[in-house]
Amino acid sequence: MKSIWMHDHTREEVGEFARSGGAVVVALAATEQHGPHLPVYTDSFIMGDVAERSVRRAADDVPVLLAPLLPIGCSEHHLSFGGTISLSPMTYFQVVRDIGESLVKAGFGKIVFLNGHGGNEPMMQQVANDLAVRHPIWTAAASYWSLARESLAAIRASEVGPVPGHAGGFETAAVMALRPELVREDRIGDSHPERDWIFAGPPGAFVGRHGELTGCDGYTDAPKLATAGKGRLYLETIADSVSGWLVRTIRAMERGEETL
Amino acid sequence: MKSIWMHDHTREEVGEFARSGGAVVVALAATEQHGPHLPVYTDSFIMGDVAERSVRRAADDVPVLLAPLLPIGCSEHHLSFGGTISLSPMTYFQVVRDIGESLVKAGFGKIVFLNGHGGNEPMMQQVANDLAVRHPIWTAAASYWSLARESLAAIRASEVGPVPGHAGGFETAAVMALRPELVREDRIGDSHPERDWIFAGPPGAFVGRHGELTGCDGYTDAPKLATAGKGRLYLETIADSVSGWLVRTIRAMERGEETL
Amino acid sequence: MKSIWMHDHTREEVGEFARSGGAVVVALAATEQHGPHLPVYTDSFIMGDVAERSVRRAADDVPVLLAPLLPIGCSEHHLSFGGTISLSPMTYFQVVRDIGESLVKAGFGKIVFLNGHGGNEPMMQQVANDLAVRHPIWTAAASYWSLARESLAAIRASEVGPVPGHAGGFETAAVMALRPELVREDRIGDSHPERDWIFAGPPGAFVGRHGELTGCDGYTDAPKLATAGKGRLYLETIADSVSGWLVRTIRAMERGEETL
Amino acid sequence: MKSIWMHDHTREEVGEFARSGGAVVVALAATEQHGPHLPVYTDSFIMGDVAERSVRRAADDVPVLLAPLLPIGCSEHHLSFGGTISLSPMTYFQVVRDIGESLVKAGFGKIVFLNGHGGNEPMMQQVANDLAVRHPIWTAAASYWSLARESLAAIRASEVGPVPGHAGGFETAAVMALRPELVREDRIGDSHPERDWIFAGPPGAFVGRHGELTGCDGYTDAPKLATAGKGRLYLETIADSVSGWLVRTIRAMERGEETL
Amino acid sequence: MKSIWMHDHTREEVGEFARSGGAVVVALAATEQHGPHLPVYTDSFIMGDVAERSVRRAADDVPVLLAPLLPIGCSEHHLSFGGTISLSPMTYFQVVRDIGESLVKAGFGKIVFLNGHGGNEPMMQQVANDLAVRHPIWTAAASYWSLARESLAAIRASEVGPVPGHAGGFETAAVMALRPELVREDRIGDSHPERDWIFAGPPGAFVGRHGELTGCDGYTDAPKLATAGKGRLYLETIADSVSGWLVRTIRAMERGEETL
Amino acid sequence: MKSIWMHDHTREEVGEFARSGGAVVVALAATEQHGPHLPVYTDSFIMGDVAERSVRRAADDVPVLLAPLLPIGCSEHHLSFGGTISLSPMTYFQVVRDIGESLVKAGFGKIVFLNGHGGNEPMMQQVANDLAVRHPIWTAAASYWSLARESLAAIRASEVGPVPGHAGGFETAAVMALRPELVREDRIGDSHPERDWIFAGPPGAFVGRHGELTGCDGYTDAPKLATAGKGRLYLETIADSVSGWLVRTIRAMERGEETL
Repeated sequence: MKSIWMHDHTREEVGEFARSGGAVVVALAATEQHGPHLPVYTDSFIMGDVAERSVRRAADDVPVLLAPLLPIGCSEHHLSFGGTISLSPMTYFQVVRDIGESLVKAGFGKIVFLNGHGGNEPMMQQVANDLAVRHPIWTAAASYWSLARESLAAIRASEVGPVPGHAGGFETAAVMALRPELVREDRIGDSHPERDWIFAGPPGAFVGRHGELTGCDGYTDAPKLATAGKGRLYLETIADSVSGWLVRTIRAMERGEETL
Repeated sequence: MKSIWMHDHTREEVGEFARSGGAVVVALAATEQHGPHLPVYTDSFIMGDVAERSVRRAADDVPVLLAPLLPIGCSEHHLSFGGTISLSPMTYFQVVRDIGESLVKAGFGKIVFLNGHGGNEPMMQQVANDLAVRHPIWTAAASYWSLARESLAAIRASEVGPVPGHAGGFETAAVMALRPELVREDRIGDSHPERDWIFAGPPGAFVGRHGELTGCDGYTDAPKLATAGKGRLYLETIADSVSGWLVRTIRAMERGEETL
Repeated sequence: MKSIWMHDHTREEVGEFARSGGAVVVALAATEQHGPHLPVYTDSFIMGDVAERSVRRAADDVPVLLAPLLPIGCSEHHLSFGGTISLSPMTYFQVVRDIGESLVKAGFGKIVFLNGHGGNEPMMQQVANDLAVRHPIWTAAASYWSLARESLAAIRASEVGPVPGHAGGFETAAVMALRPELVREDRIGDSHPERDWIFAGPPGAFVGRHGELTGCDGYTDAPKLATAGKGRLYLETIADSVSGWLVRTIRAMERGEETL
Repeated sequence: MKSIWMHDHTREEVGEFARSGGAVVVALAATEQHGPHLPVYTDSFIMGDVAERSVRRAADDVPVLLAPLLPIGCSEHHLSFGGTISLSPMTYFQVVRDIGESLVKAGFGKIVFLNGHGGNEPMMQQVANDLAVRHPIWTAAASYWSLARESLAAIRASEVGPVPGHAGGFETAAVMALRPELVREDRIGDSHPERDWIFAGPPGAFVGRHGELTGCDGYTDAPKLATAGKGRLYLETIADSVSGWLVRTIRAMERGEETL
Repeated sequence: MKSIWMHDHTREEVGEFARSGGAVVVALAATEQHGPHLPVYTDSFIMGDVAERSVRRAADDVPVLLAPLLPIGCSEHHLSFGGTISLSPMTYFQVVRDIGESLVKAGFGKIVFLNGHGGNEPMMQQVANDLAVRHPIWTAAASYWSLARESLAAIRASEVGPVPGHAGGFETAAVMALRPELVREDRIGDSHPERDWIFAGPPGAFVGRHGELTGCDGYTDAPKLATAGKGRLYLETIADSVSGWLVRTIRAMERGEETL
Repeated sequence: MKSIWMHDHTREEVGEFARSGGAVVVALAATEQHGPHLPVYTDSFIMGDVAERSVRRAADDVPVLLAPLLPIGCSEHHLSFGGTISLSPMTYFQVVRDIGESLVKAGFGKIVFLNGHGGNEPMMQQVANDLAVRHPIWTAAASYWSLARESLAAIRASEVGPVPGHAGGFETAAVMALRPELVREDRIGDSHPERDWIFAGPPGAFVGRHGELTGCDGYTDAPKLATAGKGRLYLETIADSVSGWLVRTIRAMERGEETL
């Protein structure tokens, strides 16, 4: 293909790619407050970089295109901090569903949602499920941190703070790598209150307090150990994990189709 | 309290309990096909038993009531197999939200959702999040298998099949323990096709194929090793884990309130 | 059948019953404030008892199963009194519609809604109508007090208060019969204000005042004449009327089908 | 007032009337097939006539205005016969709700819905209830046949067919009185099939069959006994009953207000 | 046809007209505040007159019927002034869509929306577009002032104020012509504040300020130059332009059909 | 400001800018089929370029930031051609509303919608109106071709085809200027069928035929006269007109505020 971007192609080029079994990746991000030091586009910067790099690599092995990044997500819990553009959960559900339904009409039988903002997860999962119920297609869905958990642990990414956290050491390092001029280093504090309840349950169990759904003052940890070099390493590691998952998943779908 | 059931009480009794800091547990289940051998109420039998036992135990340590079980869930992926009563994702979202909003109006500041059906998870998580955004309250949410993962692993529950799976060895054992007369043992097969893609990704990554979202023919594994004894052990283990989590979570909320 | 409960059966058992012309009854109730003396589950206790008894009797004469009781209804007018779990009218409409649509997909051609809470009536009637418009099926719908009006009059049930009223003599007698330990007799008053407008119009005409849609202080009349014995008589009379209506209605559907 | 029509007045005239305690009547009708012989505006012709006459009379005794007739209703069950303009139940609910909310904003504290089409009843009742829950106002709601049941029985209106029925003797007589040139007398048959199930239950109990929700071929009875003279008598009788109810209801609201 | 009104006909008469290629016009109006001097039904009076006259004339040349006027529109920006009955944008969208969908089911292949209230334009345009996307039909849509812009300019209608404006000279003249007894001449002022931003952009560009979306105090200009004679001239001119457009548009549809 | 992009800033930077009276521009585009020769991102390429250039220029004169481009719009009429990602009108309405509501919460009192796809116009206009009704703010909204109509006419842009048309000479020239490598010149035809009805009415009047809402075969005219040089000229002219309108509109708002 002349480009990894679905939207660089004409309708016939997209249609032929889709009907011949090619997959499409829909990357989901957000525009929301990221503490006093990071730009509100942090999730979109990170997801945009990871999506582009990982699809580019995966495209060497499997036929896959990347749809336009959705830069606005479900960020209701950040609205009160300002600087946030959010779709309500109901609106977001309909948006992701309409995107998926459009891609089915465009001929795609393999649709992959790739997510870079925690607040988008429930609706993404719901839609991925619903589309495969309704249409004779395959769907897949994951957040990048789920895909890169083990490889990030292997490089001890948690040394800068919880992974991914929110506007803490991990995300700060990533933005330092991608857009260093946008990081307000003068606003990075040395310490951050701990909330013992946040990680009280096992994985999958949620506990939330009004006003503190994403740490104190809208971020989870003081990013004082973040550096651009670490950010580059994290992003590279994530792109590797995501591209690997894309290849394995699309190939599993191809093998599965042979059994029909 | 005269009963662990919220609904056994009068309005004033409920109101006083809620306003004095008591928590309420909302248990979510389903009525859906469970293969050729299990009753369609399987998830409700299991969740009903687990919820009642775990709240009863937790109530010894923390103030907590149990709301009526919601026996219908989000089971669109099972409708085509028959025997299923499902709410669409949008309807289910509104139902869980309205229940939560009612409990806030009833005075509760600590609302816990406890889930027993995979298809309910995204909307439960979304609502638990939204309620804590909108109101000055605490919420928590988890599926029983997330809470009991480690303790079930410790007793090697996976020897009968994936945990929880769907209508496989694990759930069959549980129904044999609870309502043995409803299990059609004559319809239990010896083998079941494997789908290599289902568990292809890491935890949190979803891959789904039209018609095979919950294994082949609507169930995940042949339950030929299930016994009522194992089922009793699993249920007891789950109730222990869930009651432990309830106590820890409600106490963490209580401690958190002191910091306000 | 091994049980009158639809949900005790497997998907194939339900499917065969439905496709061979069997009917299904969906009982609708509520969890809402019932004055200072009755449990908030009053409507569900009563409807649950009436539904189970009347379907059990009707099943001797016609093929009929009972779906899980829906214990939460449309109780917006009770929320301000506390102790209430309510679905908004729009949510409730979608819930009853989704239940009906699921039963159609499960193969049922005869769907009967049986109601035990006044606030559920409009949406139940709308959905019963809509389902028969949309699908080649029969539907029926009624509240128990409409079906038992004449037989309750014959035993002078109104001697304890208006029938059914709300949390007055009639419902108090019923709960005394079913769950006497849950009645707060110490909270039953001797008198109750009269509102002359409530019954000003003929049957079918509604007049409502903000805050007094169900009598004063959330109940219609002082239940001082209620006894458990009267409650047992009322419930028995209602179950008789309802089972009679179920048999006549399902038989009329069967005769009607022969004329197609 | 210079006119009984609310909409003939300016905003200040409406506002002063409303805030001084005046009531407003919202008349609900339909545009839908009425068999092979009546115009599709039958319900609107009848409701328009009854509403205008009864409000005019009532206005002699109580302060009341009439809002514009809503000529389109909830007629999904008639769409398949053609000639029908229908709002879906959800749309209709929102329309009646928005009308009511607007009237509250316009200052009205007494809102009366008057209905002339059976399919509108559930949503009208729901909205009348909801408005009084949400706002410190009075609402009332009734269909004209409920209000005139006894007086129509007294003049034996049922001699021409069931009252009101649909497109049968009763409505045909009314249109003969109002718009005789629109009645296709050449399409009036001599006989009509009977459906024994339609009136099988007691008042309030619904039974419906796909395609026959309003009699056979979209009407309930052969109108061969209808005459314009009978129609005039029926309409006059109905207007009397409705105006009487309006006066009694609005006066009861006024008395009730004094008790606040 | 015996009448230009669709609703004067029976279902078979409507069906035959529609299926033989006849068009239907849906006129959209409003009930909303029109300053201190005009009745709240102003838009409905004007649109009703224009629609009836222009369809009557067009019917001499092309087969066309007129559906019932929708007298309530999207007037949220007027609610705060009182005297207004408004449907929210979402409700209005559904209403116009349901009307269009009904007309498609009634057999019409040519549906024309004719609008007399600015607030209705976006949703009318959206629905006209959507219907033609979804069904194999033609749709058309316009507001009367767009159709009569040139002919009103030719008679210098703007001498009384902006055309159409809101409750200014233009509309006042029209109501003086149609219902002079309803105009409160004692409430017509001599001057009116100018808002320079309102017409700052080119045609198609909107600028709005909270509370001043339709001029100051809910009207755009002092109607001191309005007369009944001018109103008659404007209305006659508009009816001519609209009927001309109807004929040209329906004939273009007929020619277009021949090319299929 | 360090950047014209709102999303490059931190939450505090955005909040201070907004609360001090700065404006925000929301650019709306689409991803949809553009005939056999243009990429599906055509509207987003053009709107993205115009928005960035015109806001950059306007920012020299008035305080204004640019929100992230919304690259998916309301393109239902293009879905059947393939290569299209569309939000349904209801979804799109909610998306634009949620974006606007978020910006209000973020502190903005001047919100400008700038549109580059015809199908987005009705909902954009509706939302711009609604936001100014609901909140004490200013809104503005326009499509770029409305703003540049006169200046494009002055340079005779219509020599290449109707302006803007769809995927015809005008848009082809623009993409040739922006992304020449994406234009499939081998797919540009020499001629294109004319549809006489499309421009039959005056400005503001819509006529649409199923399947031909945007010309034949999904485009309006053969772009054989398009060149990159013309495209650069058109884009430069548009950016000038849009930035001029932005400055005039924001200054008019500022002057208007002084009159409050």
